[in-house]
Amino acid sequence: MERYQVILAYDGTRFCGFQRQAGKSEALTVQSVLETALREMGWQGKSVLVAGRTDTGVHAAGQVIAFDMDWKHSQEDLIRALNAHLPLDIASRKAKVVAPNHHPRYAAVARHYRYRLLCEETRDPLHERYAWRVWPRLTIEPMQHAAQQLLGTHDFQAFGTPPTLGGSTTRTLMQAFWHIDGSEQVFEVIGNAFLYHMVRRIVALLVKIGKGEEEPDIVSYYLEGGNPSSLKTLAPPHGLTLSEVIYPPENSGESENID
Amino acid sequence: MERYQVILAYDGTRFCGFQRQAGKSEALTVQSVLETALREMGWQGKSVLVAGRTDTGVHAAGQVIAFDMDWKHSQEDLIRALNAHLPLDIASRKAKVVAPNHHPRYAAVARHYRYRLLCEETRDPLHERYAWRVWPRLTIEPMQHAAQQLLGTHDFQAFGTPPTLGGSTTRTLMQAFWHIDGSEQVFEVIGNAFLYHMVRRIVALLVKIGKGEEEPDIVSYYLEGGNPSSLKTLAPPHGLTLSEVIYPPENSGESENID
Repeated sequence: MERYQVILAYDGTRFCGFQRQAGKSEALTVQSVLETALREMGWQGKSVLVAGRTDTGVHAAGQVIAFDMDWKHSQEDLIRALNAHLPLDIASRKAKVVAPNHHPRYAAVARHYRYRLLCEETRDPLHERYAWRVWPRLTIEPMQHAAQQLLGTHDFQAFGTPPTLGGSTTRTLMQAFWHIDGSEQVFEVIGNAFLYHMVRRIVALLVKIGKGEEEPDIVSYYLEGGNPSSLKTLAPPHGLTLSEVIYPPENSGESENID
Repeated sequence: MERYQVILAYDGTRFCGFQRQAGKSEALTVQSVLETALREMGWQGKSVLVAGRTDTGVHAAGQVIAFDMDWKHSQEDLIRALNAHLPLDIASRKAKVVAPNHHPRYAAVARHYRYRLLCEETRDPLHERYAWRVWPRLTIEPMQHAAQQLLGTHDFQAFGTPPTLGGSTTRTLMQAFWHIDGSEQVFEVIGNAFLYHMVRRIVALLVKIGKGEEEPDIVSYYLEGGNPSSLKTLAPPHGLTLSEVIYPPENSGESENID
């Protein structure tokens, strides 16, 4: 028996998020589909471990899971067998053996999320599956200026709720910037961890700034506790992708981390 | 009553192609869904006109249709109303009034198709909806060299079948080249018209060349009638998009054209 860490990609469109929902056996989740595939391959575990739950409709390019399994073949064969049992909108991308006590959530030192915007007036079926269409057109400079204020360690309480009631709302962002990709404006954000709904609340606020409905400095106002109530507006889930979960270099030993 | 020309985009994944299928009322096609939407808006025609039928699973960014309708409001309102009646995977993008005898197929002078390849060893759910995943890795130079041989006027009989039995198989390609877009290799091809399955047969052959299974000069061999039987292998439909249908400049008068 060994512990395997697997990098997972999925199109979140038809799933009620990552996490299997207790008592709601009819809810289609990535975890329930994944565990069914693993059981067909002989896995006898109860539940896979995951780096971070994603919400309904959110995509992943680099979700990380782990599970214990008695697998007689190579890691490449594990990927191949898993992909043969998974539906087309979920795929395993890489596999490796990790320490028996590895937990993909506690071992992670950072998460990288990407949010795609599409500035177009009319519907665009070939681009809207993975991007939020916004109109009127956004001005990127104030959004960039606002994003820079998010960098560093702040109390993000206005931007989301912690995983446990009364838990810390302090998080550290190492990167937060916009770039252009064809007809899309893409927001890249890397942080040690994120509050529930934090990325989608940040994006919703930055889009308001890009439309000229808010000034860029409103970000600092929220970060400094200028408004104790949390931001209400969420950017829709289908623009968001969990791009990568980042771990310490292989031989440095793992560090525990909040989530 | 006026004739409207509308540019249509669709994700072809769940459709049995563009064309409504006589006697097969259960087959979901872009045309049947579109005509239902138009009827809900008061359209009383029998059938819309189309620039080019697309196969099952083929996408369109710039399909062109035309229909006669008594519409009291603006062209922007026509787009908005149509999009409110269409499902999320079909959208009207632009509308204009055209001459009463305009036919989007006969008036067109060229068609632009795009084919996306993704060179990756393992499945990739966030990119495979609109690209054909190929492995082992392709070498782009011989594919580029082979594509150049397609340019100009040739008998493309080895590459497809004409729309009418015994019809001409001569077509003219004005552009045919590969470029890189992130992790994708993209083939752009513009021709006056295309035979049935022609783009997908060309791509299948160019991919063989990119894998080193065929020499680039095999293209000339097929074009010169070196092998009378047509190429059997088709690239899958989901990598293909009808990008644009090209018309003569507005005030030049329309020319008839084969298809």
